Amino acid sequence: MSITAQNPEASIEPMMLYMGRLAREAAGELALAATDVKNAALGRMAARLETGSEKIIAANRQDLEAAEKKGRDAAFLDRLRLDGLRIAAMAKGLHEIAALPDPVGTTIAAWTRPNGLEIARVRVPLGVIGMIYESRPNVTADARGLCLKAGNAVMLRSGSDSFLTSLVIANLLTEAVTASGLPEAAIQLVPTIDRQAVGFMLGGLDGAIDVIVPRGGRSLVERVQQEARVPVFAHLEGVCHVYVDKSADLDMAKNIVVNAKMRRPGICGAAETLLVDRGAASSHLAPLVDALLHAGCEVRGDEETQRADTRVKPAADDDWGAEYLAPIIAVKVVDGLDEAVAHIAHYGSQHTDAIVTDDQNTANAFLARVDSAIVLHNASTQFADGGEFGMGAEIGIATGRFHARGPVGLEQLTTFKYVVRGQGQTRP
Amino acid sequence: MSITAQNPEASIEPMMLYMGRLAREAAGELALAATDVKNAALGRMAARLETGSEKIIAANRQDLEAAEKKGRDAAFLDRLRLDGLRIAAMAKGLHEIAALPDPVGTTIAAWTRPNGLEIARVRVPLGVIGMIYESRPNVTADARGLCLKAGNAVMLRSGSDSFLTSLVIANLLTEAVTASGLPEAAIQLVPTIDRQAVGFMLGGLDGAIDVIVPRGGRSLVERVQQEARVPVFAHLEGVCHVYVDKSADLDMAKNIVVNAKMRRPGICGAAETLLVDRGAASSHLAPLVDALLHAGCEVRGDEETQRADTRVKPAADDDWGAEYLAPIIAVKVVDGLDEAVAHIAHYGSQHTDAIVTDDQNTANAFLARVDSAIVLHNASTQFADGGEFGMGAEIGIATGRFHARGPVGLEQLTTFKYVVRGQGQTRP
Repeated sequence: MSITAQNPEASIEPMMLYMGRLAREAAGELALAATDVKNAALGRMAARLETGSEKIIAANRQDLEAAEKKGRDAAFLDRLRLDGLRIAAMAKGLHEIAALPDPVGTTIAAWTRPNGLEIARVRVPLGVIGMIYESRPNVTADARGLCLKAGNAVMLRSGSDSFLTSLVIANLLTEAVTASGLPEAAIQLVPTIDRQAVGFMLGGLDGAIDVIVPRGGRSLVERVQQEARVPVFAHLEGVCHVYVDKSADLDMAKNIVVNAKMRRPGICGAAETLLVDRGAASSHLAPLVDALLHAGCEVRGDEETQRADTRVKPAADDDWGAEYLAPIIAVKVVDGLDEAVAHIAHYGSQHTDAIVTDDQNTANAFLARVDSAIVLHNASTQFADGGEFGMGAEIGIATGRFHARGPVGLEQLTTFKYVVRGQGQTRP
Repeated sequence: MSITAQNPEASIEPMMLYMGRLAREAAGELALAATDVKNAALGRMAARLETGSEKIIAANRQDLEAAEKKGRDAAFLDRLRLDGLRIAAMAKGLHEIAALPDPVGTTIAAWTRPNGLEIARVRVPLGVIGMIYESRPNVTADARGLCLKAGNAVMLRSGSDSFLTSLVIANLLTEAVTASGLPEAAIQLVPTIDRQAVGFMLGGLDGAIDVIVPRGGRSLVERVQQEARVPVFAHLEGVCHVYVDKSADLDMAKNIVVNAKMRRPGICGAAETLLVDRGAASSHLAPLVDALLHAGCEVRGDEETQRADTRVKPAADDDWGAEYLAPIIAVKVVDGLDEAVAHIAHYGSQHTDAIVTDDQNTANAFLARVDSAIVLHNASTQFADGGEFGMGAEIGIATGRFHARGPVGLEQLTTFKYVVRGQGQTRP
């Protein structure tokens, strides 16, 4: 990367536009890159991270010191911290991406018309992906690896707290990319912490950026969704529900509810609200609440739930629809499927919602009527994950309705074109 | 529709937002509507158009008179005009949509995970489609029929020139929709010619609109693409190329080039530029130019093309990349595939481009390297059409990279969700 940090007085717009043009050119080359070349690059990227791990850790130490001085909390510092183990995990992730099948060039559908025209929908890369990440340098390696494998160029804007770490990592990755004969601009880091960079990327850099992938806190994702002039793969929040129907097996319901909330309360697929069918309240409500409390979960309930167990705290209005990302759950008794579906439509985030029931008809109605990216029957919401779906690594979960809904893996980082082969056909 | 034209002094924003909420509610019902109910509605829509044809023609006559007074040209008045034949064609189009398979609820892919989870990608409607059409009332019937069949609610903003016609048609269609037990707001017409309506729709009406479909002149589509805060299915222009390679069969090349340009010069899939490989110039250039001239096409060429035939006019800089939509073609001699691909990348519109060659390797390279929604080998660009692709009716061609690329038919008016069926699985 020949571009260096700019004079803070000057506008970064020309630099950003120039990077966009480089990315677009690189995307044209990457779209045609052979699978083994891309895989070799991913292998080299992994190797460079490992041989460069001391450099990375030294830069990371500086980022950590600055973040501590700013008074960042322990969870923030932990996300920012890289060590030998985390760098080895980053390298392993890149090797795993190399082992995934290449989606580019595969035929999604093919048919022959009565006039002999052979029509195929063929996967091609999306183009240029703009990534706007806050301070979690380890996950950006995976994300950039996925983009490269799918034949896309990447422009990454790193949060300022992890900037030095990101810069060292970017230089190592670029060395690996160019050593593999791929264009230098395949993976670019925006070389400034100037916050204007985000705005320029959201504007699409004069058509150079095809899609934005933000990863970070709610305020970042909210800004991106509100301001982006190009498509966005993101979810603002995961307000996931489990609805326990009157025909639910109690043991299964307890296992699923406790797992959906407590396995990892901080992930986007964690359940935030438990809805219990009034028809199951007398038999299931108290045992479900007890299982949650026993697992260390705070329970905030409506009046009926409070009556079921004195340890339940009263739920306030803003508990419905809250994304706790913590061992807290809101519990409400509802009048059957209709109220459950209406509650999810009103308070949910179209991410992931589950029903527990032994009644197949009720299950089918729930799966059809709940309008979320992922709907589950008799399974934990924590399965909302590309790896668990068998897609390999993922960049995240998207809750928009277009193109990539649910886990965003390799295939979701491609689009398609129609390839038509004829023998001289003209249209009558 | 109970909403009537507003006081022009008042903002139409509350009305627009209210219509958006009605559309969103209707979309929820439509998503679950049975195929036979939707087909019955389409049949009733066709019948109402035919029984109401006198009313439609009377309203259309008023629109035509007003347009004539405004000095609209003959082509404009022709697009605006409805008569018994056109109304019958609209009705026939709706019957044809009823006969197409229903995409909603079909399984795109399904697989079972090692832990027994059964995962399916299932088609669901997109939601609410905002249509912004200029003055061509007949094509909006097809478009609304396609949206309904795919389970979507529609808000249509009609151009002011066809407003009275659109109002009568909308009332007839709504009668058919409600008579079929579907929600009244399944198909709404924005009941005002206030131009602010377009802006509100482009803003998404507070999340109520999922996608915008514009149909009209370049300035409309340009505005929509620049201002829309929601995804857009559209193409700004179709600057389609035919590249005749040195290994092209001359007769095939003549047939394809003349058909691609002259069959209907005014459609978006019509060829606008002919690129001839220098290796074929001595043998193919003059006969290709002669065939085009013979078919009544004006030829504007580079110097080499001008030398090949004295009837060729000199091409100016802005002939490359021009969308004539008329019997005019720009012709240029290029140095083989590389220059052809570079020319198309620079001047094309990522719509539809074709190569004529008997060399399979050159064809494959062209099909891989040209980054357009549709690429063809040895076939006319005029096949760029949903009907010709076997998709049935289409709403238009999209040149964006997301979701719907190429013809936008029934399937492209849907999205998907993941339906996961378990037997009590929790995530380890």
